[in-house]
Amino acid sequence: MSVAAIQRVELDTGFWADRIRINRERTIPHGLDQLRDAGNLDNLRLAAGAAGEYRAPDSLPFLDSDVYKWLEAVGWELARKPDHDLASAADDVIGLIAAAQRPDGYLNSYVQVVGGGVPYRDLSWGHELYCLGHLIQAAVAWHRALGDDRLLTIAIRAAGHVPDGIIDGHPNIEMALVELGRVTGDRRHLTMALRMLDLRGRGTLAGAARFGAAYWQDHELVRDARSVAGHAVRQLYLDCGAVDVAVELGDDRLLAAVRHRWDDMVRTRTYLTGGLGSRHRDEAFGDPYELPPDRAYAETCAAIAGVMLAWRLLLATGDACYADAIERTMFNGVLPGISLDGTRFFYTNPLQRRTRRAPGGTEQRRPWYPCACCPPNLMRMLSSWPRYLATYDDSGVQLHQYASADITSGPVRLRVHTGYPWDGRVTVHFVETPAKPWTLSLRVPRWCRSATLTGPDGTHAVGAGVTKRHRRWQPGDVVELNLEMPARITEPDPRIDAVRGCVAVERGPLVYCIESADAPRRTEIEELTWDPGGALTPVPRPDVAESVVGVDVPMTGGLTAGAIPYLAWANRGEGGMRVWIPYEPVIRAAARWSRGRSAAA
Amino acid sequence: MSVAAIQRVELDTGFWADRIRINRERTIPHGLDQLRDAGNLDNLRLAAGAAGEYRAPDSLPFLDSDVYKWLEAVGWELARKPDHDLASAADDVIGLIAAAQRPDGYLNSYVQVVGGGVPYRDLSWGHELYCLGHLIQAAVAWHRALGDDRLLTIAIRAAGHVPDGIIDGHPNIEMALVELGRVTGDRRHLTMALRMLDLRGRGTLAGAARFGAAYWQDHELVRDARSVAGHAVRQLYLDCGAVDVAVELGDDRLLAAVRHRWDDMVRTRTYLTGGLGSRHRDEAFGDPYELPPDRAYAETCAAIAGVMLAWRLLLATGDACYADAIERTMFNGVLPGISLDGTRFFYTNPLQRRTRRAPGGTEQRRPWYPCACCPPNLMRMLSSWPRYLATYDDSGVQLHQYASADITSGPVRLRVHTGYPWDGRVTVHFVETPAKPWTLSLRVPRWCRSATLTGPDGTHAVGAGVTKRHRRWQPGDVVELNLEMPARITEPDPRIDAVRGCVAVERGPLVYCIESADAPRRTEIEELTWDPGGALTPVPRPDVAESVVGVDVPMTGGLTAGAIPYLAWANRGEGGMRVWIPYEPVIRAAARWSRGRSAAA
Repeated sequence: MSVAAIQRVELDTGFWADRIRINRERTIPHGLDQLRDAGNLDNLRLAAGAAGEYRAPDSLPFLDSDVYKWLEAVGWELARKPDHDLASAADDVIGLIAAAQRPDGYLNSYVQVVGGGVPYRDLSWGHELYCLGHLIQAAVAWHRALGDDRLLTIAIRAAGHVPDGIIDGHPNIEMALVELGRVTGDRRHLTMALRMLDLRGRGTLAGAARFGAAYWQDHELVRDARSVAGHAVRQLYLDCGAVDVAVELGDDRLLAAVRHRWDDMVRTRTYLTGGLGSRHRDEAFGDPYELPPDRAYAETCAAIAGVMLAWRLLLATGDACYADAIERTMFNGVLPGISLDGTRFFYTNPLQRRTRRAPGGTEQRRPWYPCACCPPNLMRMLSSWPRYLATYDDSGVQLHQYASADITSGPVRLRVHTGYPWDGRVTVHFVETPAKPWTLSLRVPRWCRSATLTGPDGTHAVGAGVTKRHRRWQPGDVVELNLEMPARITEPDPRIDAVRGCVAVERGPLVYCIESADAPRRTEIEELTWDPGGALTPVPRPDVAESVVGVDVPMTGGLTAGAIPYLAWANRGEGGMRVWIPYEPVIRAAARWSRGRSAAA
Repeated sequence: MSVAAIQRVELDTGFWADRIRINRERTIPHGLDQLRDAGNLDNLRLAAGAAGEYRAPDSLPFLDSDVYKWLEAVGWELARKPDHDLASAADDVIGLIAAAQRPDGYLNSYVQVVGGGVPYRDLSWGHELYCLGHLIQAAVAWHRALGDDRLLTIAIRAAGHVPDGIIDGHPNIEMALVELGRVTGDRRHLTMALRMLDLRGRGTLAGAARFGAAYWQDHELVRDARSVAGHAVRQLYLDCGAVDVAVELGDDRLLAAVRHRWDDMVRTRTYLTGGLGSRHRDEAFGDPYELPPDRAYAETCAAIAGVMLAWRLLLATGDACYADAIERTMFNGVLPGISLDGTRFFYTNPLQRRTRRAPGGTEQRRPWYPCACCPPNLMRMLSSWPRYLATYDDSGVQLHQYASADITSGPVRLRVHTGYPWDGRVTVHFVETPAKPWTLSLRVPRWCRSATLTGPDGTHAVGAGVTKRHRRWQPGDVVELNLEMPARITEPDPRIDAVRGCVAVERGPLVYCIESADAPRRTEIEELTWDPGGALTPVPRPDVAESVVGVDVPMTGGLTAGAIPYLAWANRGEGGMRVWIPYEPVIRAAARWSRGRSAAA
């Protein structure tokens, strides 16, 4: 049963409002500075005819896309609230893009300046359609949020330049084309997206020797593949496009193929944090249950793409499992990608950082990256986050994510109050409501073992999944959902080899971790083992950030370590961290075997 | 106390003799075919002036080195026993090399044909000195083993072309130059090697952005670095050169630096198999105790380099710990790199292969590789292996590795009989001996918990380390070393996160593994957990190969899995394999904590 997003969701206080405010006030201006400093804007100037040298670290050809993602974020922000400086900066950037576009509609600064002006020559590595996809997404955002069609005009002309029968090594264009078709009503964009999907898995892209065809999603037909494979972001963006096409065409078989891959991915290749992609070498999904915590790649962009895909599946099906995944991934997979102050970013998101490490690692957040896909992806994700909270259909309104917010859907206006994710009480006030009966649906997260719903008809225990209340609502009605959130121990699936003999601490939707800063005096976190005989104790942690609830975790030897939410890690120095905490191994041993202990050799 | 290699060691029957025979009869001829087919020889022809297109997959510039390593192996083989076909093929190849060398002495087919003939332009990635190092090593082998100086003449001229003050992104030239100095008596080669060592760690090499300066061993002074880091083969080749220089110059500080790194490496960054280097992305050493079994890189070349380094340290110090490491690494780190039939090779040597895997993996042995460093490295390692067995000094003869062999050192001639590694009895017959007393030293491997030595003075228990017998030996004397080798359970160091909750099976010097082919009916190896209540049972496994001793391992549920030596894995199909076997986790649990089980999301 498909549902539709509610566009008018306004957050003013609480966890997510704070995050969105930091994104607006700190991260997006920081992003503009970085785009200027890194040369992304100058590159567009060169394409528009200015003189100078093109800047592309490591010859990366996709720097335009970072500009488009930044613009998409700015579009959402200007719609939320006008801002003269931001609008003016965006106007300049849009002007640059317009000036860079060729008379024939083609637009890609790298190809125009460095690549001899010959389009689509290196579809495997070139990222031309990938960049175009991000341009289209920014254009659609500006059209939808602001009714501003400057970017849309550019995007339509650029899309019109793309010949039939080609695909890109990095999927992204597919979902963008569907959106462009929705906005313009021009079915040709949808047809092209469908054709691009159907061309994959036929060996179209050359040069697969290095990482194999799965690297650019050309290893298997989109309709046939039973599991995710290859470069994680590419796989997930591709599946976003597949869902979009399936929904537009009512193609149930295509939708079922994506759902099957998603189920398999969540079961076998998803980190506890919602992180996706376990291999550094080719940024790829690994074997089933290959989920190393220390060498987790778990690219921030992959977590974002995971949210985008789960959201599309939620809209297509209404199934709460996708909202559960969005919650887990946003809190624990996406947010750790950005520092609490909003100006430093992780590209990879390991679940363990050793106190002592090899030189030259990638374990610190940085202000920017040579390949800077993640930072502006975070910006657009956070800017558009309010639209992920609630949906509607003919039966009523569905609340999927909990934040203090005003939600308006047609004649319904709800006011939600909550201290989520620190507190599990969610109060929904009915501010405006039509006279006829309708259904309010509330998600009870799968992590919750005990929940109650209090409404006009009293208090009732509710189980995980979706709980619904159908009635003739009155303005002034109040519904209160109470999600108990004791700190809890989570054991890994025994097939995950890399974290055998460990447990994790969770509370509510949050995954916790132990950092060096919170290890008992004179111990390193690598020396700690969990004591199953002790109790987990939630404690306020204002030292980490306002409102944060930590969990004191009992360790053997009478020690205690203060776990903090993983989303707040790496904001207090460069020490070690671990999500999965070992417990002392016990072998039920008959001493019949000769026993040795070997470090290695 | 330094010792010297014994050059005259002849193996005729037994484990190692068989391996060396297969190398000679199958692997080396296979190598020649591959060098022809892959274009390595044609590339030299082009450098010599022939017309045609240079062949370098992925633009790899170091294909010449594979030819040199192959020639080095051939040199050792021709000295062992003449072979007309092999000699004739080698003559052709040497002729090609001579013809390719420029009048000014420079020799590198890639630079001459593809690189515009400008030497030393890309020292970071170019591998020119690396290739030259292998040329020198082949030349030294032909000089030493055969008294044939054709390659030496070429190598001396090529070395003379190298200007002062440069270093190569891939160390190797350093140890080669020391050997060249030893052979020619020309101290300038040693001086250049020393200078190259001292230039490292000063940021000389450009373009370190991608993998960091440790990738090419330019991150720290060779004399200062306290632990191994970066690309494993490069680190180890560099340290080989450092030991060689230290020994020549009596530079104890330099030697101590290498020994410290080696100790740290064995303690914190060495697989149970002796494998080295845990990261795929940059073929690098990881953090301390970062030793994932599934994503072990453990390049075959790194294991070979580990043996080369341990051998140099053994010669420099006489310390048995280095001979222990050579044994462990040769059996379990080097030999798994080649199929039992001698014609297929592993580049990486994981300690776990899942039954179900992601597409496009690197888990099969292949006849050759685009980057084919490992196969000819195996060839030269196996061809020269007899020289690693024994040493001598003023006090007498030291036996380090056990194989049936005739060993001649000056007036001493010993005949060793053994069924090693399947059986722990080693008999040493004194065939010829001088009249004056001298000391026979025998290594008692560290894995051995119970050993006896029987000689003219009776039978005595001996402990791990080196056991010595000093006496006036008579021809006809016999000494028998008995090493008990029950199958044993090995627990990992608890700091190795990736194999927590697992044990390994070993017997004698061999690491064992479970393969799908030996899992109980209708089970996958991923479903098996070790039963500590059962007994390990050695059993003959002629189905794997002649003489092989397997170990039947008790699993929970009353099952048994037949473990085989890891050195013989992947010769019976493409199923799963694991060295580290989980046992059932037991948490001494007070049920005070809320407990969940989560695959992932």
